[in-house]
Amino acid sequence: MGADRQGLGRQGRLNMAIGTSEVEAAAGRINGHIRRTPALVLGKGAFGLAFPIALKLESLQASGTFKARGAFHKLLLRKPPAAGVIAASGGNHGAAIAYAARSLGHKAEIFVPTLASAAKVQRLKDFGATVNQIGAVYTEAREASIRRAQETGAMTVEAYDDPEVFAGAGTIAREFAEDAAFDTLLVAVGGGGLISGCVAALGGRAKIVAVETDGTPTLNRALAAGRPVDVSVSGLAVDALGASRIGASNFEQVNDRVASVLVADDDLRRAQRALWNELRIVAEPAGAAGLAALMAGVYRPASAERVAVLVCGGNTDPASLA
Amino acid sequence: MGADRQGLGRQGRLNMAIGTSEVEAAAGRINGHIRRTPALVLGKGAFGLAFPIALKLESLQASGTFKARGAFHKLLLRKPPAAGVIAASGGNHGAAIAYAARSLGHKAEIFVPTLASAAKVQRLKDFGATVNQIGAVYTEAREASIRRAQETGAMTVEAYDDPEVFAGAGTIAREFAEDAAFDTLLVAVGGGGLISGCVAALGGRAKIVAVETDGTPTLNRALAAGRPVDVSVSGLAVDALGASRIGASNFEQVNDRVASVLVADDDLRRAQRALWNELRIVAEPAGAAGLAALMAGVYRPASAERVAVLVCGGNTDPASLA
Repeated sequence: MGADRQGLGRQGRLNMAIGTSEVEAAAGRINGHIRRTPALVLGKGAFGLAFPIALKLESLQASGTFKARGAFHKLLLRKPPAAGVIAASGGNHGAAIAYAARSLGHKAEIFVPTLASAAKVQRLKDFGATVNQIGAVYTEAREASIRRAQETGAMTVEAYDDPEVFAGAGTIAREFAEDAAFDTLLVAVGGGGLISGCVAALGGRAKIVAVETDGTPTLNRALAAGRPVDVSVSGLAVDALGASRIGASNFEQVNDRVASVLVADDDLRRAQRALWNELRIVAEPAGAAGLAALMAGVYRPASAERVAVLVCGGNTDPASLA
Repeated sequence: MGADRQGLGRQGRLNMAIGTSEVEAAAGRINGHIRRTPALVLGKGAFGLAFPIALKLESLQASGTFKARGAFHKLLLRKPPAAGVIAASGGNHGAAIAYAARSLGHKAEIFVPTLASAAKVQRLKDFGATVNQIGAVYTEAREASIRRAQETGAMTVEAYDDPEVFAGAGTIAREFAEDAAFDTLLVAVGGGGLISGCVAALGGRAKIVAVETDGTPTLNRALAAGRPVDVSVSGLAVDALGASRIGASNFEQVNDRVASVLVADDDLRRAQRALWNELRIVAEPAGAAGLAALMAGVYRPASAERVAVLVCGGNTDPASLA
């Protein structure tokens, strides 16, 4: 055990909230509730790249993104009270909580800002949730959600700053490593839930590269500062990657264990179009971030380095690809 | 051998151009050139169905449809001359021939009617083909392609009425049967190439249901007449399923060996939207036909019958789903 710790070095468990065993347990819990999404290996030349690439098509996951993994895990681990579950999110976390709650027979209330699009509100309703549109910005919707949970006794579920949520997210990397061989995994980062789970799942067996956009460099800035810092966010991927501060538990989990690169919004659009043109896959901007980093050359693999990318979500208007 | 023939009965090889061994050989030839597309099994409740369903996501195939399988097989089996290959098709066959020819280092000329959309012509050019827009209708483009092949000595490739082409198409059913267990396979039918390959590949091991639309009932009418007959075609799926007459070799291959159902264009649209909403998969209208037959109830499986569907193509404008 002591030897293991030493052997793992900076990739080791020190300061990490969870490790491979917690992800394995999460995988057992959510098995049968989430989809085992396909991995696809494309040869050299695909997307104009000079090397092969493995893709995990998580855009095909229930609710449209990897968020279903953490949502199911949390609700299966901590059985919600009769008052149900509450989340504040007009985006992918809210959709995943609504989907998982309906699937498991719980009530769900989702709080979104008044500016949330009609399409996103309708999708939450389609998943059976009660939708409360409150506040001009996310923070106000979130405060209202906390007040409501105090009134009703419902269980709130955080989007990323919770090891029980990101243990679920980590199951994606566990599956991917079973289905494809890779040395390096590129992961889009917003609040840090997905990459925290991946760090835990892989336990140092692959290099992990965090991909953010110029407009949402939340982890990048925190790594530079050595601690979570506030970042003002903007741009194409802001609805999915636009956390203004990396989660505290997420920073502890990934600090010193991941590389970090930034891509431009134009890189995301090019990668989205390439995924559509070459693979007929619709990725949302954040879902195309890993491929964008390779296509733009901001991450260049070494010779024979086997790279893999999570296409982590597909919740976008398909007309944006036309 | 004699006993085998008797044992197989109506599902046997009598009158069939090819069988499982030809498909197995084709699979060996095209291995490494085409993508092994994912199979995904969704539980009861998906798409509003009261039973589980297995999907083969062939919309992720190179060139966007299953047609790449037959195209690669033909070009690998019959090495084209220096003059290259010629096909007449503004649709999926043309795209597949252009893609396969470029991949294998052959010249390709594709003949399309003058009315072909700019987007389709551009995609053929992106695949490296010379595009000739000749004639108001497909027949004129086809005649021009035959004259051109006689001039240049290029090899023409038929879209479906060629056992060497549909042996390649059949590899889809072979893969699917390896990756998922099913009793019944629903297959969209245009000129009959895909279903001919499936009949050959499965050799009676599963029931095969041909799905056509009210506007493109080419096989349905031929089965009723007991021979290929001319059909006037129209509607949403006409670009992919609108063959005016089932191929002669295809009719021989599938007659008495498949069931036949028809769906309406509205059923296709509903199935396309369901694939997008629940799975973030973009299928073209023809690619949604199998699911449409289940959702519309024109094919109702028996209790415990395990059904499978080929989502056979994704070449459509994603904005049509918005």
